[in-house]
Amino acid sequence: MTHVTDTVSASDLFARHRETLDAALEAIRERGYWSRYPELPGAYGEEAAETGKAVFDAHLGTRFAIDQPGTVDWVGGERSPYGIELGITYPRPDVDVLLAAMGDAIAAWRDAGVDARVGAALEILERLNQRSHEIALAVMHTTGQAFPMAFQAGGPHAQDRALEAIAYAYAEMTRHPQESMWEKPQGKRPPLRMGKRFSVAPRGIGLVIGCSTFPTWNSYPGLFASLVTGNPVVVKPSRHAVLPLAITVAVARDVLADAGLPPDVVTLAAESRVERLASVLAVRPEIRVVDYTGSTEFGNWLEDNARQAVVFTEKAGVNSVIVDSTDDYQGMLRNLAFTLSLYSGQMCTTTQNLVVPRGGIETDDGRKTFDEVATDLGAAIDGLLGDDARATAILGAIGQSGVLDRIEENETRGRLIRASAPLQHPEFPDAVVRTPLLVAIDDPAGEDAHLSEQFGPISFVVATEDTDDSLELLRRTVRDHGAITAGVYSTDDKVLAAAEEIALETGVAISFNLTGGVYVNQSAAFSDFHATGANPAANASFTDGAFVASRFRVVQSRWPLPDEAEPEPEV
Amino acid sequence: MTHVTDTVSASDLFARHRETLDAALEAIRERGYWSRYPELPGAYGEEAAETGKAVFDAHLGTRFAIDQPGTVDWVGGERSPYGIELGITYPRPDVDVLLAAMGDAIAAWRDAGVDARVGAALEILERLNQRSHEIALAVMHTTGQAFPMAFQAGGPHAQDRALEAIAYAYAEMTRHPQESMWEKPQGKRPPLRMGKRFSVAPRGIGLVIGCSTFPTWNSYPGLFASLVTGNPVVVKPSRHAVLPLAITVAVARDVLADAGLPPDVVTLAAESRVERLASVLAVRPEIRVVDYTGSTEFGNWLEDNARQAVVFTEKAGVNSVIVDSTDDYQGMLRNLAFTLSLYSGQMCTTTQNLVVPRGGIETDDGRKTFDEVATDLGAAIDGLLGDDARATAILGAIGQSGVLDRIEENETRGRLIRASAPLQHPEFPDAVVRTPLLVAIDDPAGEDAHLSEQFGPISFVVATEDTDDSLELLRRTVRDHGAITAGVYSTDDKVLAAAEEIALETGVAISFNLTGGVYVNQSAAFSDFHATGANPAANASFTDGAFVASRFRVVQSRWPLPDEAEPEPEV
Repeated sequence: MTHVTDTVSASDLFARHRETLDAALEAIRERGYWSRYPELPGAYGEEAAETGKAVFDAHLGTRFAIDQPGTVDWVGGERSPYGIELGITYPRPDVDVLLAAMGDAIAAWRDAGVDARVGAALEILERLNQRSHEIALAVMHTTGQAFPMAFQAGGPHAQDRALEAIAYAYAEMTRHPQESMWEKPQGKRPPLRMGKRFSVAPRGIGLVIGCSTFPTWNSYPGLFASLVTGNPVVVKPSRHAVLPLAITVAVARDVLADAGLPPDVVTLAAESRVERLASVLAVRPEIRVVDYTGSTEFGNWLEDNARQAVVFTEKAGVNSVIVDSTDDYQGMLRNLAFTLSLYSGQMCTTTQNLVVPRGGIETDDGRKTFDEVATDLGAAIDGLLGDDARATAILGAIGQSGVLDRIEENETRGRLIRASAPLQHPEFPDAVVRTPLLVAIDDPAGEDAHLSEQFGPISFVVATEDTDDSLELLRRTVRDHGAITAGVYSTDDKVLAAAEEIALETGVAISFNLTGGVYVNQSAAFSDFHATGANPAANASFTDGAFVASRFRVVQSRWPLPDEAEPEPEV
Repeated sequence: MTHVTDTVSASDLFARHRETLDAALEAIRERGYWSRYPELPGAYGEEAAETGKAVFDAHLGTRFAIDQPGTVDWVGGERSPYGIELGITYPRPDVDVLLAAMGDAIAAWRDAGVDARVGAALEILERLNQRSHEIALAVMHTTGQAFPMAFQAGGPHAQDRALEAIAYAYAEMTRHPQESMWEKPQGKRPPLRMGKRFSVAPRGIGLVIGCSTFPTWNSYPGLFASLVTGNPVVVKPSRHAVLPLAITVAVARDVLADAGLPPDVVTLAAESRVERLASVLAVRPEIRVVDYTGSTEFGNWLEDNARQAVVFTEKAGVNSVIVDSTDDYQGMLRNLAFTLSLYSGQMCTTTQNLVVPRGGIETDDGRKTFDEVATDLGAAIDGLLGDDARATAILGAIGQSGVLDRIEENETRGRLIRASAPLQHPEFPDAVVRTPLLVAIDDPAGEDAHLSEQFGPISFVVATEDTDDSLELLRRTVRDHGAITAGVYSTDDKVLAAAEEIALETGVAISFNLTGGVYVNQSAAFSDFHATGANPAANASFTDGAFVASRFRVVQSRWPLPDEAEPEPEV
């Protein structure tokens, strides 16, 4: 283990991390660039990579011991998309016993107070950060992300998002004083005077349901927001990506124990292959907050059925980029090629539909026909992925077999521009690697495949009458099918303004003319809001006031204060 | 009309009311005593009462003209609990036409921006404040509140709550800048630089469903919170209390028109006697926010069915006061007598259950048996209401016939301590006035009447084994049946602490040892949180961050900024 175990009070922890919190509080006010946790693996010291690998390897083929109540048996079955069996098993809980133990921890966690909870949460993050190499390997070998991305997105970027959520929650919990004095003038009579106390009360127990592609990044905001607002949290990972969250839970429990707080404030709920533990937990009366990332079907089920809880969901969507014109054709193609290739399109932010006028577009390289745009984009992907080692460092591997089926299904759903092909991974011979599929939809009509999410390395170049028609398609797509990202390439300010108006109306984040090192599928903590909560792709955003404010309630007590003698006049 | 019509830009209005906003922003941070709008009728000048009466009288027997789209016919039927017919009719809308017009107003209202919307809202409040006498009479003659209360709760106190909601919403919308610059270092390469814009986007159209007892106080927080966050609002009043909200809507539309903004941002939806317009409107796809005060049955229906909207409900509850011991027996009795008498208990904050140990209590006036406490409280009520003029100024009149039936039903639900009796109103011979009913429940068991809300002047003195048993009853009552207020009288700090722990656990505001001029059923804007959202009596609080944060979304756009030349070193 790489972290140093120590025993400290939670208020010591708050003092220790006060500077981090203050910087994060400033960052969420500014929403410019800020990051707490270095994103480059090299920043963690010379031995960190080696140690992380050793710790990760030591997990393989073992029981991942978490000493939590109610363990019935041990379940596992994760298989790396890179072709290795992980062979790790995790405690499967008796839900009654686990939730009872968590319920018993509520009062102590609540009464520890805001600062102690925030101090403990920041210490958890700090220790997770020290284990970023181990977590990166855990994310890589459960999700299929390539190592560089698994490190950044699974480690420091996820930790930054967690810190962002903590900062919002702290700001929300401390916007009022803990006590106040109310003194109402009564004319010539003495004023009415009341003492008042305002306490943060949690809703109950939180449930975080992890996804198979971003087990930490998508889970941390809800996990840490619920925790610091006083709700113990049970983490139910995707059965394909348990390890990153098991490490997270274990670290959290260590910190809690070290700080003299009940470890059962954070627990893991791993499930067997035949269980649907998320749906069992989600409707338990003890569960009062649910955070979920995954399919629209189950997200909607949660919203409809977990009525005793406040439910935050991120679901499927159809992300579009409108191509109207550009003054940097090559930059646009390179930027889009990278977006479509990164992690084989297995991101909720990846562009699915490239919307191009049938008549072609104006560029700095002359007018390009619709077919030229499509084939040039295919060629840009080919160029980006020309070298196998570089290609696999971008593409990663395919996590789920459903993605392979989906690639095959979509090959014939339009005119094939660029076929998806397997690639040999230089390091992992059994890795399942696929390059992006690009299909032209020449005559979009009705509910074509491009209007539902085709998760994976599958994109469509969709022909429209003109850019007005493209904008209308964007409006309809976001409104009816949801989206987390949108983009537009245009040299015409009117087109950009019209696209921004549609983004406002339908509620989707939009990027203009990305041709350099920022990609539409990237979202930076402390600056970019991830999802809006305003369209069918998500009912909440990472991270804003609405994401934290309803996770707790203010409970007030008040009492009369004795009349004050009239103060002596100052002389 | 008492207000001066003027034409100003909305940004002028923001500047005009900036000081008010800043003071309100400070007040919500401090949660001590603050009020913007004077609560004493005399503060409004010598002629205000007369003018207000004249304007109110002029409404009687007329059409209340609101020039809004889609009016189909004119509906009315309000009858004053003081015995006079109001004879006012209001426009009944074609919902399709009305919502379409409101939908057309969304973009202009959104694009006006935060400051313009807040400026307009503050001007609306200012003009409403100037019409407080007229509104007080409108509230009095629709709800049955006595004039002093109708003035305060219906006028300045409601306006203060509205201002509080505006301040929270303003703080929430301005916690991030409207634009930011993101500059990420790239080692030796030039930094990545992005411009970002963060826009407040409304959810859609808000629906405010008014109640019959506090048409303005309970509606204003939702109305103004939705408005300033960019959502046009349709106001559906209780059919028993249309006038106060019709005046409100008319004032709002005047201000909007004066400021060059679309008046259809605020509309009225009056209904005929056979309609259930609230349930029609609530499930319309255009409606994305609902604010409701009323029965648990319909509140739950809204939560279950208005799934396209975020729904804020205040429903029924059972408020309790635990009596354990006191060092001011007479003060306690006087305080409770006033609480039970004010507006004949027709408040969502009125105490229903006085929970007293079977064996009696210790007081500064010696030990009192259970029966003595009960009969002394009855006597205190008799004393308070001994003079008819004073009595009716406290009691007001009974608004709904259901209350009369309920009084009769409850007389036999326990041992009668104090019978409810009619009183002759000195000014209004046909006013329906009733004094409080007090019934002892000597052997509470199972689901007695005292465990469901008996709305009106109906209270129970409930016998328990001891104070531990009283505390347990409090816990069970709040958890299972909801409550907006709780109180405890005790000279024992351990009892106060145990009660506060239960308040935290079940999520109810609690008052200790009120014996003077503050009453458990009073809630002061800018200091007391009204309801918590943590128990079945309400899913939200007036007014906190959670009440405003999910009424809008932040929609972001971003674009690359050109590389900056390296800055010259400063010399």
